[in-house]
Amino acid sequence: MAAWSERRLIKKIRQASLRASNGLLKAIGDDCCEVTAPGSFLISTDTLVDSVHFDVSFHPPYLLGRKSIAVNLSDIAAMGGRPRFVLLSLCLPENLEWDWISRWLDGALEILQEYDCVLIGGDTVKGKELVLTVTVLGEPVGSGAVYRDGAKEGDTVWVSGDLGTAGGGLALLNHNKNEHDSLDLGGWNALLSGHLNPVPRIHLGMELARSGLLTAMQDISDGLATDLAHLCQASGVSAIIYGENLPFLPELSTAAEVLNLKLEDLILRSGEDYQLVFTVRKGKEDEFVGLMQKSKKEIFKIGEIRSGAGVFYDNGDSIEDISFQGYEH
Amino acid sequence: MAAWSERRLIKKIRQASLRASNGLLKAIGDDCCEVTAPGSFLISTDTLVDSVHFDVSFHPPYLLGRKSIAVNLSDIAAMGGRPRFVLLSLCLPENLEWDWISRWLDGALEILQEYDCVLIGGDTVKGKELVLTVTVLGEPVGSGAVYRDGAKEGDTVWVSGDLGTAGGGLALLNHNKNEHDSLDLGGWNALLSGHLNPVPRIHLGMELARSGLLTAMQDISDGLATDLAHLCQASGVSAIIYGENLPFLPELSTAAEVLNLKLEDLILRSGEDYQLVFTVRKGKEDEFVGLMQKSKKEIFKIGEIRSGAGVFYDNGDSIEDISFQGYEH
Repeated sequence: MAAWSERRLIKKIRQASLRASNGLLKAIGDDCCEVTAPGSFLISTDTLVDSVHFDVSFHPPYLLGRKSIAVNLSDIAAMGGRPRFVLLSLCLPENLEWDWISRWLDGALEILQEYDCVLIGGDTVKGKELVLTVTVLGEPVGSGAVYRDGAKEGDTVWVSGDLGTAGGGLALLNHNKNEHDSLDLGGWNALLSGHLNPVPRIHLGMELARSGLLTAMQDISDGLATDLAHLCQASGVSAIIYGENLPFLPELSTAAEVLNLKLEDLILRSGEDYQLVFTVRKGKEDEFVGLMQKSKKEIFKIGEIRSGAGVFYDNGDSIEDISFQGYEH
Repeated sequence: MAAWSERRLIKKIRQASLRASNGLLKAIGDDCCEVTAPGSFLISTDTLVDSVHFDVSFHPPYLLGRKSIAVNLSDIAAMGGRPRFVLLSLCLPENLEWDWISRWLDGALEILQEYDCVLIGGDTVKGKELVLTVTVLGEPVGSGAVYRDGAKEGDTVWVSGDLGTAGGGLALLNHNKNEHDSLDLGGWNALLSGHLNPVPRIHLGMELARSGLLTAMQDISDGLATDLAHLCQASGVSAIIYGENLPFLPELSTAAEVLNLKLEDLILRSGEDYQLVFTVRKGKEDEFVGLMQKSKKEIFKIGEIRSGAGVFYDNGDSIEDISFQGYEH
C-alpha cells in the first residue's frame, strides 16, 4: 500500500475547495482564504487524537471522516446555527496509507456537501501520531444563536432523540476488540452506527432556534448527566429528569444485558450521541408542541428546570443527583 | 516540576478570553463562541509540530508562544488585513511541564494583545507529541484584501525588510546544538531574534492595502525564491530581482562566513523572515514612494514583473532562475 503524500492530499483538498463557491471569495492557494461573513459567526474547533478519541482498528476511515466533521457540525447545531465553512488541520504519521486518508477525506467531503458546507482551507503536516483538528464556522438563524445560559425555573427540558445509542455501539465494538467471546454484531446496526456514523441535528437545531421558544440548548457529547449539568450550571438553575421519559432504542436494553452493563449508565452517562438537550420557555410548551407536530418532528420532554443547582434523576423509586457523571474525553 | 493539567490550562485560556470583549459576543464556555463579523473574513490555519517546525531544546516557550501566533498573523498581514480572532488547538504530551505550556500561553497572549486580537476558543487534548494548531480570522481593510494573483507585467517588486535574518539565526542555533565548537552567540541578537521572535508586518500590511497601489502580496515564510515564485505562478507572470537591491543585515555576512554558508543562500533561500513581498502597479511607483516616505516606512524595491514564468536572479554577473528554491517545511 502506498503511503500518503502531502502534494497529493493538498491537491485533493484544493479540488474540493474549488468546486465549492457558496460564499467563498478566495479559495485555498493564497496566504488566507476569504469568506463572506453574515452579522456574526459561530465558531468551534475540535481536536481528535487516535486511540484517545477514536480507534482506527474498528473505525472505517470513511465513517471516521464523516464523524470528524459531524462532531463539529453538532456544535453549530447546539447553537441552532447553519454550518457554512470548515478548515482541516491534519497531522499524519509518515507511513499512513494513502488509501486510508483518501477515504477519510471522502467521508469528510461527503458530509460537508450534505449540509451545504464548504471546505475552505487547512494545513497538513507530518507527525508521530494521527491528530485531526476540525474548525467550523456557522451563522445564527432566526432571532439568533441559542446559548446554554438562558434556562429559567419552570422551563421544560427536552431531548431530540434516543440516548445511549452511541455508548452501546462503542461497548459492543470494544467487547469484540478486547474479549475472547466475540459477539455476532449483525443485529446491532443502529447501535454501531450511533458510534461510527453519528448524525448532527443541524436541521432540527435550526428549526428549534427559529421557533423563538427555546431558552437554552447544547449537544450531548459527554452524556446527558454531564451536558445537562453544563447547561444548568451556565444558567444558574437545577433540573429534574424522569427516567420513564428518557428515549432509547429497544435493542439498547438487550445490548446492556448481553454486555452486563447497566442500561441506566448507557442512557445517562455514555457520550457521543450528539442529540440536542434544550429548554422551552415556561408557559410556551403548548405552542412549542404544536409547532413540532406541524413539522412532524419527534422530540421528547424529559423534565423541568427548577431553582438551585444540580441535575436530579428520578428513577420512579428514588431521586439522585447525577450532575457531571458523564463520559470524559 | 509539575505536569500540565487540562483544567488549569483551560481556566487560564478562559480567563484571557473573558478579559477581551472587542467583537466577542459569546466567549469560551458554550458549544461555540460567537463573534461579530465584518463583510468578509480572512482565515488561515497553521499546524506546528515539535522538531519539525520548531526545536524546544533552544526555543524558549515564551518566545515560541509569540512565534506560533506571529506566523499566523503574518498570513493576515500578507493579505493587508487586520487580525481579529484566534483559536488554539493544543495537543500536549502528558508529561509536559505546566511551567512550559504556561509560559508558551503567556507569550501567545502577549502578542495577541499587541495586535488587539482576541483568543476566542480552542481545544486541548493529550497526545504523544506536541502539536500546536493556530487559526486566525482577520478582516480586510481599505478597498479589500490583496491577493497573490494580481501582478502584471511592468509592476515593480518590493520587500518590506531584511532577508535571511531568521535563516542566519537558525543556522547559528543549530550549529551550537550539533557541533563541538560552540560559538559565543552574544553578538548575534538580531539574527537570533529573527528566528526566535519574528515580527509579523501587520501595520505595514494594512498601510500597503490602504494605499490601493498594490497588485499582489504575500509573506516570506519559505524564502524569497519560493514565495515570489508562488506570487508569479498565481499571477501568470515572471519576475527579475537584482542582487544588489536585496536588503540584509551586515551581521548576516559575518555569520555566513563563520558558519561557512553562502550569503546568497541565506538571503534567497532561507525561510521564516515573515517580511512581505509585494508588487506595485505599473506607473504608480512615484505615488507609492511618496506615500511611504510620508509615513516614514522603509521598504525596498528589488525588481520588476515581466511576462513569462519563473523568478530570475541577477547577481551582477549572470542571471539564474531561482523559482521554488526555498525552504520546505
